Amino acid sequence: MNWDNIDTHAKNWVKEAGEKIRSSFDKTLDIRTKSNPNDLVTNIDQEIEQFFIKKVRETFPEHKILGEEGFGDKFESLDGIVWIIDPIDGTMNFVHQQRNFAISLGVYENGVGKIGMIYDVVHDELYHAMSGQGAYMNGEKLPVSEDRTVKEAIIALNATWVMENRRIDHNLLIPLAREVRGTRSYGSAALELVFVATGRLDAYISLRLAPWDVAGGAVIVEELGGKVTNMRGEKLDFLTQDTLLVARPGLHETILRDYLMNGQWEKNSDSE
Amino acid sequence: MNWDNIDTHAKNWVKEAGEKIRSSFDKTLDIRTKSNPNDLVTNIDQEIEQFFIKKVRETFPEHKILGEEGFGDKFESLDGIVWIIDPIDGTMNFVHQQRNFAISLGVYENGVGKIGMIYDVVHDELYHAMSGQGAYMNGEKLPVSEDRTVKEAIIALNATWVMENRRIDHNLLIPLAREVRGTRSYGSAALELVFVATGRLDAYISLRLAPWDVAGGAVIVEELGGKVTNMRGEKLDFLTQDTLLVARPGLHETILRDYLMNGQWEKNSDSE
Repeated sequence: MNWDNIDTHAKNWVKEAGEKIRSSFDKTLDIRTKSNPNDLVTNIDQEIEQFFIKKVRETFPEHKILGEEGFGDKFESLDGIVWIIDPIDGTMNFVHQQRNFAISLGVYENGVGKIGMIYDVVHDELYHAMSGQGAYMNGEKLPVSEDRTVKEAIIALNATWVMENRRIDHNLLIPLAREVRGTRSYGSAALELVFVATGRLDAYISLRLAPWDVAGGAVIVEELGGKVTNMRGEKLDFLTQDTLLVARPGLHETILRDYLMNGQWEKNSDSE
Repeated sequence: MNWDNIDTHAKNWVKEAGEKIRSSFDKTLDIRTKSNPNDLVTNIDQEIEQFFIKKVRETFPEHKILGEEGFGDKFESLDGIVWIIDPIDGTMNFVHQQRNFAISLGVYENGVGKIGMIYDVVHDELYHAMSGQGAYMNGEKLPVSEDRTVKEAIIALNATWVMENRRIDHNLLIPLAREVRGTRSYGSAALELVFVATGRLDAYISLRLAPWDVAGGAVIVEELGGKVTNMRGEKLDFLTQDTLLVARPGLHETILRDYLMNGQWEKNSDSE
Protein backbone atom coordinates (compact mmCIF):
# COMPACT_ATOMS: atom_id res chain seq x y z
CA MET A 1 0.00 0.00 0.00
CA ASN A 2 1.42 3.36 -1.04
CA TRP A 3 0.48 5.48 1.99
CA ASP A 4 2.45 8.49 0.78
CA ASN A 5 0.29 8.55 -2.33
CA ILE A 6 -2.92 8.31 -0.27
CA ASP A 7 -1.61 11.03 2.04
CA THR A 8 -0.77 13.41 -0.81
CA HIS A 9 -4.22 13.03 -2.31
CA ALA A 10 -5.91 13.44 1.06
CA LYS A 11 -3.99 16.62 1.79
CA ASN A 12 -4.84 18.15 -1.59
CA TRP A 13 -8.52 17.31 -1.20
CA VAL A 14 -8.67 18.73 2.32
CA LYS A 15 -7.13 21.98 1.11
CA GLU A 16 -9.50 22.11 -1.86
CA ALA A 17 -12.48 21.44 0.41
CA GLY A 18 -11.30 24.23 2.72
CA GLU A 19 -11.26 26.61 -0.22
CA LYS A 20 -14.84 25.63 -1.09
CA ILE A 21 -15.91 26.28 2.49
CA ARG A 22 -14.19 29.67 2.61
CA SER A 23 -15.85 30.74 -0.62
CA SER A 24 -19.25 29.64 0.79
CA PHE A 25 -19.05 32.43 3.41
CA ASP A 26 -20.43 34.88 0.88
CA LYS A 27 -23.35 32.64 -0.11
CA THR A 28 -26.60 32.01 1.72
CA LEU A 29 -26.51 28.86 3.80
CA ASP A 30 -29.31 26.33 3.56
CA ILE A 31 -29.56 25.13 7.16
CA ARG A 32 -31.59 22.08 8.18
CA THR A 33 -31.83 19.99 11.31
CA LYS A 34 -31.21 16.26 11.61
CA SER A 35 -32.08 14.07 14.60
CA ASN A 36 -32.91 16.99 16.90
CA PRO A 37 -33.31 20.77 16.54
CA ASN A 38 -29.73 21.40 17.59
CA ASP A 39 -28.18 18.87 15.22
CA LEU A 40 -27.67 21.22 12.31
CA VAL A 41 -26.62 20.40 8.79
CA THR A 42 -26.05 22.76 5.90
CA ASN A 43 -25.85 22.31 2.15
CA ILE A 44 -22.11 22.96 2.51
CA ASP A 45 -21.63 19.98 4.88
CA GLN A 46 -23.34 17.80 2.30
CA GLU A 47 -21.50 19.23 -0.70
CA ILE A 48 -18.12 18.79 0.97
CA GLU A 49 -18.86 15.19 1.94
CA GLN A 50 -19.93 14.41 -1.62
CA PHE A 51 -16.78 16.07 -2.92
CA PHE A 52 -14.64 13.72 -0.80
CA ILE A 53 -16.68 10.66 -1.76
CA LYS A 54 -16.34 11.43 -5.45
CA LYS A 55 -12.58 11.95 -5.16
CA VAL A 56 -11.97 8.80 -3.11
CA ARG A 57 -14.17 6.62 -5.35
CA GLU A 58 -12.46 7.89 -8.51
CA THR A 59 -8.94 7.52 -7.20
CA PHE A 60 -9.13 4.58 -4.78
CA PRO A 61 -12.20 2.57 -5.86
CA GLU A 62 -11.40 -0.24 -3.40
CA HIS A 63 -11.48 2.08 -0.35
CA LYS A 64 -14.60 2.60 1.74
CA ILE A 65 -15.99 5.84 3.15
CA LEU A 66 -17.70 6.53 6.47
CA GLY A 67 -19.04 10.07 6.57
CA GLU A 68 -21.18 12.15 8.89
CA GLU A 69 -23.76 13.05 6.29
CA GLY A 70 -24.40 9.39 5.41
CA PHE A 71 -23.57 9.47 1.69
CA GLY A 72 -20.81 6.91 2.23
CA ASP A 73 -20.93 3.15 2.75
CA LYS A 74 -22.69 1.10 5.45
CA PHE A 75 -20.40 -0.55 7.97
CA GLU A 76 -20.32 -3.58 10.18
CA SER A 77 -16.56 -3.63 10.52
CA LEU A 78 -13.58 -1.46 9.63
CA ASP A 79 -11.92 -4.16 7.49
CA GLY A 80 -9.92 -2.82 4.58
CA ILE A 81 -9.10 0.83 4.07
CA VAL A 82 -11.74 3.21 5.36
CA TRP A 83 -11.84 6.98 5.08
CA ILE A 84 -13.69 8.45 8.07
CA ILE A 85 -14.77 11.99 7.25
CA ASP A 86 -16.53 14.85 8.97
CA PRO A 87 -16.82 17.50 6.26
CA ILE A 88 -17.53 20.23 8.83
CA ASP A 89 -16.92 19.30 12.45
CA GLY A 90 -18.60 21.99 14.54
CA THR A 91 -21.48 22.79 12.19
CA MET A 92 -23.17 24.92 14.86
CA ASN A 93 -20.05 27.10 15.07
CA PHE A 94 -19.86 27.19 11.27
CA VAL A 95 -23.43 28.49 11.11
CA HIS A 96 -23.29 30.91 14.05
CA GLN A 97 -19.66 32.02 14.05
CA GLN A 98 -18.04 31.23 10.70
CA ARG A 99 -15.08 30.02 12.78
CA ASN A 100 -14.19 27.31 15.32
CA PHE A 101 -14.98 24.45 12.94
CA ALA A 102 -12.72 22.08 11.02
CA ILE A 103 -12.56 19.40 8.37
CA SER A 104 -11.76 16.07 10.02
CA LEU A 105 -10.36 13.16 8.04
CA GLY A 106 -8.93 9.84 9.19
CA VAL A 107 -7.76 6.97 7.01
CA TYR A 108 -7.84 3.61 8.78
CA GLU A 109 -6.57 0.18 7.73
CA ASN A 110 -8.36 -2.72 9.39
CA GLY A 111 -9.37 -0.39 12.22
CA VAL A 112 -5.89 1.03 12.77
CA GLY A 113 -5.36 4.77 12.21
CA LYS A 114 -2.79 5.49 9.48
CA ILE A 115 -3.46 9.11 8.48
CA GLY A 116 -5.14 11.91 10.46
CA MET A 117 -5.87 15.44 9.26
CA ILE A 118 -7.71 18.27 10.93
CA TYR A 119 -7.98 21.44 8.90
CA ASP A 120 -8.90 24.64 10.75
CA VAL A 121 -10.18 26.31 7.61
CA VAL A 122 -10.50 29.89 8.85
CA HIS A 123 -7.02 29.98 10.38
CA ASP A 124 -5.55 27.96 7.51
CA GLU A 125 -3.97 25.57 10.01
CA LEU A 126 -3.57 21.99 8.81
CA TYR A 127 -2.78 19.49 11.55
CA HIS A 128 -1.50 16.26 10.08
CA ALA A 129 -0.03 12.94 11.14
CA MET A 130 0.96 9.73 9.42
CA SER A 131 1.31 6.90 11.87
CA GLY A 132 4.95 6.50 12.88
CA GLN A 133 6.13 9.62 11.06
CA GLY A 134 5.40 12.43 13.53
CA ALA A 135 2.68 15.06 13.61
CA TYR A 136 2.82 18.47 12.00
CA MET A 137 1.00 21.80 11.89
CA ASN A 138 1.42 23.41 8.46
CA GLY A 139 4.59 21.39 8.03
CA GLU A 140 6.06 22.35 11.42
CA LYS A 141 6.80 19.34 13.61
CA LEU A 142 4.77 19.23 16.83
CA PRO A 143 6.49 18.25 20.08
CA VAL A 144 5.65 15.04 21.89
CA SER A 145 3.02 15.36 24.66
CA GLU A 146 4.24 15.30 28.25
CA ASP A 147 2.42 14.63 31.48
CA ARG A 148 0.74 17.42 33.47
CA THR A 149 -0.94 17.40 36.88
CA VAL A 150 -4.70 17.80 37.26
CA LYS A 151 -4.18 21.05 39.18
CA GLU A 152 -2.28 22.56 36.26
CA ALA A 153 -4.57 21.20 33.57
CA ILE A 154 -7.05 22.97 31.33
CA ILE A 155 -9.69 20.55 30.14
CA ALA A 156 -12.38 20.90 27.52
CA LEU A 157 -15.68 19.81 29.01
CA ASN A 158 -19.12 21.06 28.05
CA ALA A 159 -21.28 22.43 30.88
CA THR A 160 -23.90 19.83 29.94
CA TRP A 161 -21.67 17.02 31.22
CA VAL A 162 -21.57 18.27 34.81
CA MET A 163 -25.38 18.44 34.86
CA GLU A 164 -27.55 15.36 35.44
CA ASN A 165 -27.58 13.38 32.19
CA ARG A 166 -28.43 9.93 30.89
CA ARG A 167 -24.89 8.81 30.07
CA ILE A 168 -22.87 9.03 33.24
CA ASP A 169 -23.34 10.01 36.86
CA HIS A 170 -22.39 13.69 36.64
CA ASN A 171 -21.07 13.53 40.21
CA LEU A 172 -18.03 11.72 38.81
CA LEU A 173 -17.01 14.70 36.69
CA ILE A 174 -17.76 17.52 39.15
CA PRO A 175 -14.67 16.95 41.34
CA LEU A 176 -12.51 16.92 38.21
CA ALA A 177 -14.05 20.17 36.94
CA ARG A 178 -13.41 21.75 40.36
CA GLU A 179 -9.83 20.59 40.70
CA VAL A 180 -8.42 21.45 37.28
CA ARG A 181 -6.95 24.89 36.62
CA GLY A 182 -9.73 25.70 34.17
CA THR A 183 -12.40 24.31 31.85
CA ARG A 184 -13.17 25.38 28.31
CA SER A 185 -15.65 24.38 25.63
CA TYR A 186 -15.19 25.15 21.93
CA GLY A 187 -17.92 23.10 20.28
CA SER A 188 -15.73 21.20 17.80
CA ALA A 189 -14.38 17.80 18.81
CA ALA A 190 -11.86 17.88 15.97
CA LEU A 191 -10.38 21.15 17.21
CA GLU A 192 -10.53 20.05 20.84
CA LEU A 193 -8.54 16.94 19.88
CA VAL A 194 -5.81 18.92 18.12
CA PHE A 195 -5.74 21.39 21.01
CA VAL A 196 -4.82 18.42 23.22
CA ALA A 197 -2.24 17.36 20.64
CA THR A 198 -0.66 20.83 20.65
CA GLY A 199 -0.91 21.31 24.43
CA ARG A 200 -3.39 24.20 24.29
CA LEU A 201 -5.63 21.85 26.24
CA ASP A 202 -4.46 19.03 28.49
CA ALA A 203 -7.54 16.82 28.23
CA TYR A 204 -10.88 16.67 26.47
CA ILE A 205 -13.92 14.80 27.70
CA SER A 206 -17.18 14.20 25.90
CA LEU A 207 -20.11 11.96 26.69
CA ARG A 208 -21.34 11.50 23.13
CA LEU A 209 -19.30 11.51 19.97
CA ALA A 210 -19.55 9.72 16.63
CA PRO A 211 -16.63 8.03 14.82
CA TRP A 212 -16.18 10.90 12.33
CA ASP A 213 -15.81 13.42 15.19
CA VAL A 214 -12.77 11.58 16.54
CA ALA A 215 -11.12 9.47 13.81
CA GLY A 216 -8.87 12.16 12.31
CA GLY A 217 -7.79 13.79 15.57
CA ALA A 218 -7.12 10.47 17.30
CA VAL A 219 -4.30 9.65 14.87
CA ILE A 220 -2.65 13.02 15.58
CA VAL A 221 -3.01 12.81 19.37
CA GLU A 222 -1.70 9.22 19.50
CA GLU A 223 1.21 10.00 17.20
CA LEU A 224 2.38 12.52 19.83
CA GLY A 225 1.99 10.05 22.69
CA GLY A 226 -1.42 11.23 23.95
CA LYS A 227 -4.13 8.72 24.88
CA VAL A 228 -7.52 8.35 23.18
CA THR A 229 -10.10 6.00 24.74
CA ASN A 230 -13.70 6.06 25.84
CA MET A 231 -14.42 7.03 29.44
CA ARG A 232 -14.00 3.42 30.55
CA GLY A 233 -10.45 3.44 29.23
CA GLU A 234 -11.34 1.16 26.30
CA LYS A 235 -10.16 1.52 22.73
CA LEU A 236 -12.73 3.16 20.42
CA ASP A 237 -14.23 0.93 17.72
CA PHE A 238 -15.04 3.81 15.30
CA LEU A 239 -18.33 2.11 14.42
CA THR A 240 -20.62 3.41 17.16
CA GLN A 241 -21.23 6.52 19.23
CA ASP A 242 -19.18 6.46 22.41
CA THR A 243 -17.86 8.57 25.26
CA LEU A 244 -14.39 10.06 24.89
CA LEU A 245 -11.42 10.75 27.16
CA VAL A 246 -8.41 12.25 25.41
CA ALA A 247 -5.44 13.48 27.41
CA ARG A 248 -1.73 13.82 27.75
CA PRO A 249 -0.05 10.54 28.72
CA GLY A 250 0.00 10.19 32.50
CA LEU A 251 -2.85 12.66 32.93
CA HIS A 252 -5.09 10.19 31.07
CA GLU A 253 -4.32 7.45 33.58
CA THR A 254 -4.73 9.87 36.50
CA ILE A 255 -8.19 11.00 35.38
CA LEU A 256 -9.29 7.44 34.69
CA ARG A 257 -8.05 6.17 38.06
CA ASP A 258 -8.83 9.08 40.40
CA TYR A 259 -12.10 10.38 38.94
CA LEU A 260 -13.59 7.70 36.69
CA MET A 261 -13.24 4.64 38.96
CA ASN A 262 -10.92 2.99 36.45
CA GLY A 263 -13.88 2.87 34.08
CA GLN A 264 -16.02 0.79 36.46
CA TRP A 265 -18.85 3.35 36.64
CA GLU A 266 -22.46 2.46 35.91
CA LYS A 267 -24.63 4.35 33.47
CA ASN A 268 -26.75 6.91 35.25
CA SER A 269 -30.24 5.52 35.79
CA ASP A 270 -31.74 9.01 35.87
CA SER A 271 -32.63 10.05 32.37
CA GLU A 272 -32.83 13.66 31.22
CA MET B 1 -13.27 67.14 26.08
CA ASN B 2 -11.64 66.06 22.82
CA TRP B 3 -12.74 62.43 22.69
CA ASP B 4 -11.37 61.89 19.20
CA ASN B 5 -7.93 62.80 20.51
CA ILE B 6 -8.27 60.39 23.45
CA ASP B 7 -9.53 57.70 21.08
CA THR B 8 -6.63 58.12 18.66
CA HIS B 9 -4.09 57.82 21.45
CA ALA B 10 -5.87 54.83 22.97
CA LYS B 11 -5.94 53.01 19.64
CA ASN B 12 -2.25 53.64 19.00
CA TRP B 13 -1.30 52.44 22.49
CA VAL B 14 -3.43 49.29 22.18
CA LYS B 15 -1.77 48.43 18.87
CA GLU B 16 1.67 49.12 20.34
CA ALA B 17 0.89 46.98 23.39
CA GLY B 18 -0.28 44.17 21.07
CA GLU B 19 3.04 44.32 19.27
CA LYS B 20 4.88 44.01 22.61
CA ILE B 21 2.78 40.97 23.50
CA ARG B 22 3.35 39.30 20.14
CA SER B 23 7.10 39.80 20.45
CA SER B 24 6.99 38.28 23.96
CA PHE B 25 5.99 34.89 22.49
CA ASP B 26 9.65 34.13 21.84
CA LYS B 27 10.75 35.01 25.37
CA THR B 28 10.45 32.98 28.56
CA LEU B 29 7.43 33.96 30.59
CA ASP B 30 7.79 34.65 34.29
CA ILE B 31 4.54 33.24 35.64
CA ARG B 32 3.30 33.85 39.17
CA THR B 33 0.04 33.34 40.98
CA LYS B 34 -2.04 35.98 42.73
CA SER B 35 -4.95 35.35 45.10
CA ASN B 36 -5.17 31.62 44.31
CA PRO B 37 -3.12 29.07 42.35
CA ASN B 38 -5.26 29.53 39.25
CA ASP B 39 -5.13 33.33 39.24
CA LEU B 40 -2.04 33.65 37.09
CA VAL B 41 -0.06 36.75 36.29
CA THR B 42 2.98 37.10 34.09
CA ASN B 43 5.69 39.71 33.73
CA ILE B 44 4.04 40.62 30.42
CA ASP B 45 0.70 41.47 32.09
CA GLN B 46 2.57 43.77 34.43
CA GLU B 47 4.76 45.35 31.76
CA ILE B 48 1.77 46.09 29.54
CA GLU B 49 -0.20 47.67 32.36
CA GLN B 50 2.77 49.87 33.25
CA PHE B 51 3.14 50.84 29.59
CA PHE B 52 -0.48 52.09 29.53
CA ILE B 53 -0.11 53.90 32.84
CA LYS B 54 3.00 55.71 31.68
CA LYS B 55 1.34 56.75 28.40
CA VAL B 56 -1.88 57.95 30.03
CA ARG B 57 -0.06 59.86 32.80
CA GLU B 58 2.25 61.59 30.31
CA THR B 59 -0.49 62.55 27.88
CA PHE B 60 -3.56 63.02 30.06
CA PRO B 61 -2.23 63.75 33.56
CA GLU B 62 -5.70 64.59 34.90
CA HIS B 63 -7.11 61.14 33.96
CA LYS B 64 -7.20 58.22 36.40
CA ILE B 65 -6.37 54.57 35.75
CA LEU B 66 -7.96 51.41 37.11
CA GLY B 67 -5.94 48.36 36.09
CA GLU B 68 -5.99 44.66 36.86
CA GLU B 69 -2.42 44.51 38.08
CA GLY B 70 -2.99 47.28 40.61
CA PHE B 71 -0.35 49.77 39.48
CA GLY B 72 -3.02 52.39 38.83
CA ASP B 73 -4.99 54.59 41.20
CA LYS B 74 -7.23 53.66 44.16
CA PHE B 75 -10.94 54.26 43.63
CA GLU B 76 -14.03 55.06 45.63
CA SER B 77 -15.96 56.48 42.70
CA LEU B 78 -15.64 56.78 38.94
CA ASP B 79 -15.79 60.60 38.96
CA GLY B 80 -13.77 62.24 36.21
CA ILE B 81 -12.20 60.38 33.33
CA VAL B 82 -11.07 56.87 34.19
CA TRP B 83 -9.21 54.40 32.00
CA ILE B 84 -10.15 50.84 32.98
CA ILE B 85 -7.54 48.44 31.64
CA ASP B 86 -6.94 44.71 31.55
CA PRO B 87 -3.53 44.37 29.89
CA ILE B 88 -4.12 40.67 29.15
CA ASP B 89 -7.66 39.42 29.66
CA GLY B 90 -7.45 35.63 29.65
CA THR B 91 -3.98 35.26 31.18
CA MET B 92 -4.48 31.50 31.60
CA ASN B 93 -5.08 31.20 27.85
CA PHE B 94 -2.11 33.47 27.18
CA VAL B 95 0.12 31.16 29.24
CA HIS B 96 -1.27 27.81 28.04
CA GLN B 97 -2.37 28.59 24.49
CA GLN B 98 -0.74 31.80 23.28
CA ARG B 99 -4.19 32.65 21.90
CA ASN B 100 -7.74 33.37 23.09
CA PHE B 101 -6.70 36.41 25.13
CA ALA B 102 -7.18 40.13 24.50
CA ILE B 103 -6.27 43.61 25.64
CA SER B 104 -9.34 45.26 27.17
CA LEU B 105 -9.60 49.00 27.53
CA GLY B 106 -12.53 51.21 28.49
CA VAL B 107 -12.52 54.97 29.00
CA TYR B 108 -15.31 56.20 31.26
CA GLU B 109 -16.47 59.72 32.15
CA ASN B 110 -18.24 59.98 35.51
CA GLY B 111 -19.06 56.28 35.28
CA VAL B 112 -20.43 56.42 31.72
CA GLY B 113 -18.62 54.41 29.02
CA LYS B 114 -17.27 56.61 26.22
CA ILE B 115 -14.66 54.42 24.49
CA GLY B 116 -14.31 50.63 24.40
CA MET B 117 -11.57 48.61 22.75
CA ILE B 118 -10.90 44.88 22.74
CA TYR B 119 -7.82 43.81 20.84
CA ASP B 120 -7.54 40.13 19.90
CA VAL B 121 -3.78 40.31 19.55
CA VAL B 122 -3.12 36.98 17.84
CA HIS B 123 -5.81 37.47 15.21
CA ASP B 124 -5.01 41.20 14.87
CA GLU B 125 -8.70 42.00 15.33
CA LEU B 126 -9.43 45.34 16.99
CA TYR B 127 -13.02 45.78 18.17
CA HIS B 128 -13.76 49.38 18.89
CA ALA B 129 -16.65 51.65 19.81
CA MET B 130 -17.08 55.29 20.73
CA SER B 131 -20.37 55.93 22.42
CA GLY B 132 -22.93 57.13 19.86
CA GLN B 133 -20.68 56.57 16.87
CA GLY B 134 -21.14 52.88 16.08
CA ALA B 135 -18.91 49.87 16.70
CA TYR B 136 -16.24 48.54 14.37
CA MET B 137 -13.97 45.57 13.84
CA ASN B 138 -10.74 46.68 12.13
CA GLY B 139 -12.63 49.65 10.73
CA GLU B 140 -15.56 47.59 9.41
CA LYS B 141 -18.89 48.68 10.87
CA LEU B 142 -20.63 45.98 12.95
CA PRO B 143 -24.38 45.44 12.56
CA VAL B 144 -26.80 46.23 15.36
CA SER B 145 -27.74 43.25 17.62
CA GLU B 146 -31.14 41.69 17.11
CA ASP B 147 -33.20 39.46 19.35
CA ARG B 148 -32.86 35.65 19.27
CA THR B 149 -34.84 32.94 21.06
CA VAL B 150 -33.34 30.86 23.85
CA LYS B 151 -33.72 27.70 21.74
CA GLU B 152 -31.59 29.20 18.96
CA ALA B 153 -29.04 30.78 21.29
CA ILE B 154 -25.42 29.85 21.93
CA ILE B 155 -24.35 31.11 25.33
CA ALA B 156 -20.95 31.28 26.95
CA LEU B 157 -21.16 29.76 30.40
CA ASN B 158 -18.37 28.05 32.28
CA ALA B 159 -19.09 24.51 33.54
CA THR B 160 -18.29 25.76 37.05
CA TRP B 161 -21.47 27.87 37.11
CA VAL B 162 -23.83 24.91 36.73
CA MET B 163 -22.14 23.17 39.67
CA GLU B 164 -22.94 24.01 43.29
CA ASN B 165 -21.18 27.29 44.09
CA ARG B 166 -21.22 30.07 46.65
CA ARG B 167 -22.59 32.82 44.41
CA ILE B 168 -25.91 31.64 43.05
CA ASP B 169 -28.17 28.62 43.28
CA HIS B 170 -26.87 26.62 40.32
CA ASN B 171 -30.34 25.17 39.79
CA LEU B 172 -31.33 28.52 38.28
CA LEU B 173 -28.83 28.16 35.45
CA ILE B 174 -29.27 24.45 34.67
CA PRO B 175 -32.60 24.84 32.82
CA LEU B 176 -31.07 27.63 30.72
CA ALA B 177 -28.02 25.50 29.86
CA ARG B 178 -30.34 22.65 28.84
CA GLU B 179 -32.67 24.74 26.71
CA VAL B 180 -30.19 26.77 24.67
CA ARG B 181 -28.86 25.43 21.36
CA GLY B 182 -25.36 25.15 22.81
CA THR B 183 -22.95 26.37 25.47
CA ARG B 184 -19.34 27.42 25.02
CA SER B 185 -16.55 28.65 27.26
CA TYR B 186 -13.49 30.51 25.97
CA GLY B 187 -11.84 31.75 29.17
CA SER B 188 -11.62 35.44 28.25
CA ALA B 189 -14.44 37.75 29.31
CA ALA B 190 -13.26 40.45 26.90
CA LEU B 191 -13.51 38.08 23.94
CA GLU B 192 -16.80 36.61 25.15
CA LEU B 193 -18.20 40.16 25.30
CA VAL B 194 -17.16 40.98 21.74
CA PHE B 195 -18.45 37.60 20.56
CA VAL B 196 -21.86 38.71 21.88
CA ALA B 197 -21.39 42.06 20.13
CA THR B 198 -20.61 40.33 16.81
CA GLY B 199 -23.32 37.66 17.18
CA ARG B 200 -20.89 34.72 17.44
CA LEU B 201 -22.46 34.24 20.85
CA ASP B 202 -25.95 35.32 21.86
CA ALA B 203 -25.34 35.69 25.59
CA TYR B 204 -22.54 35.44 28.13
CA ILE B 205 -22.98 34.72 31.81
CA SER B 206 -20.38 34.84 34.55
CA LEU B 207 -20.67 34.67 38.31
CA ARG B 208 -17.50 36.58 39.10
CA LEU B 209 -15.88 39.32 37.10
CA ALA B 210 -13.87 42.42 37.94
CA PRO B 211 -14.43 45.89 36.39
CA TRP B 212 -11.43 45.56 34.03
CA ASP B 213 -12.80 42.30 32.61
CA VAL B 214 -15.96 44.03 31.44
CA ALA B 215 -15.42 47.79 31.04
CA GLY B 216 -14.08 47.80 27.46
CA GLY B 217 -16.44 45.19 26.04
CA ALA B 218 -19.50 46.72 27.69
CA VAL B 219 -19.15 49.91 25.62
CA ILE B 220 -19.01 47.86 22.40
CA VAL B 221 -21.96 45.61 23.29
CA GLU B 222 -24.14 48.54 24.37
CA GLU B 223 -23.25 50.60 21.31
CA LEU B 224 -24.80 47.80 19.21
CA GLY B 225 -27.93 47.63 21.33
CA GLY B 226 -26.95 44.64 23.50
CA LYS B 227 -27.56 44.68 27.24
CA VAL B 228 -24.90 44.51 29.98
CA THR B 229 -26.00 44.12 33.61
CA ASN B 230 -25.28 41.93 36.58
CA MET B 231 -27.43 38.81 37.03
CA ARG B 232 -30.00 40.82 38.98
CA GLY B 233 -30.51 43.07 35.98
CA GLU B 234 -28.74 45.99 37.66
CA LYS B 235 -26.27 48.38 36.06
CA LEU B 236 -22.63 47.53 36.86
CA ASP B 237 -20.76 50.03 39.04
CA PHE B 238 -17.27 49.15 37.68
CA LEU B 239 -15.87 49.47 41.20
CA THR B 240 -16.49 45.99 42.59
CA GLN B 241 -16.55 42.36 41.49
CA ASP B 242 -20.00 41.39 40.30
CA THR B 243 -21.96 38.81 38.35
CA LEU B 244 -22.54 39.45 34.65
CA LEU B 245 -25.35 38.88 32.16
CA VAL B 246 -24.64 40.15 28.65
CA ALA B 247 -27.01 39.36 25.80
CA ARG B 248 -28.76 40.49 22.68
CA PRO B 249 -31.65 42.86 23.41
CA GLY B 250 -34.81 40.86 24.04
CA LEU B 251 -32.88 37.72 24.90
CA HIS B 252 -31.45 39.59 27.93
CA GLU B 253 -34.96 40.32 29.24
CA THR B 254 -36.07 36.73 28.50
CA ILE B 255 -33.19 35.18 30.44
CA LEU B 256 -33.67 37.57 33.35
CA ARG B 257 -37.42 36.95 33.52
CA ASP B 258 -37.70 33.24 32.69
CA TYR B 259 -34.58 31.85 34.36
CA LEU B 260 -33.26 34.41 36.86
CA MET B 261 -36.51 35.30 38.67
CA ASN B 262 -36.22 38.90 37.48
CA GLY B 263 -33.10 39.15 39.62
CA GLN B 264 -34.93 38.26 42.85
CA TRP B 265 -32.77 35.21 43.62
CA GLU B 266 -30.99 34.73 46.92
CA LYS B 267 -27.32 33.95 47.24
CA ASN B 268 -26.71 30.25 47.61
CA SER B 269 -26.23 29.41 51.28
CA ASP B 270 -24.15 26.35 50.39
CA SER B 271 -20.55 27.38 50.08
CA GLU B 272 -17.97 25.52 48.03
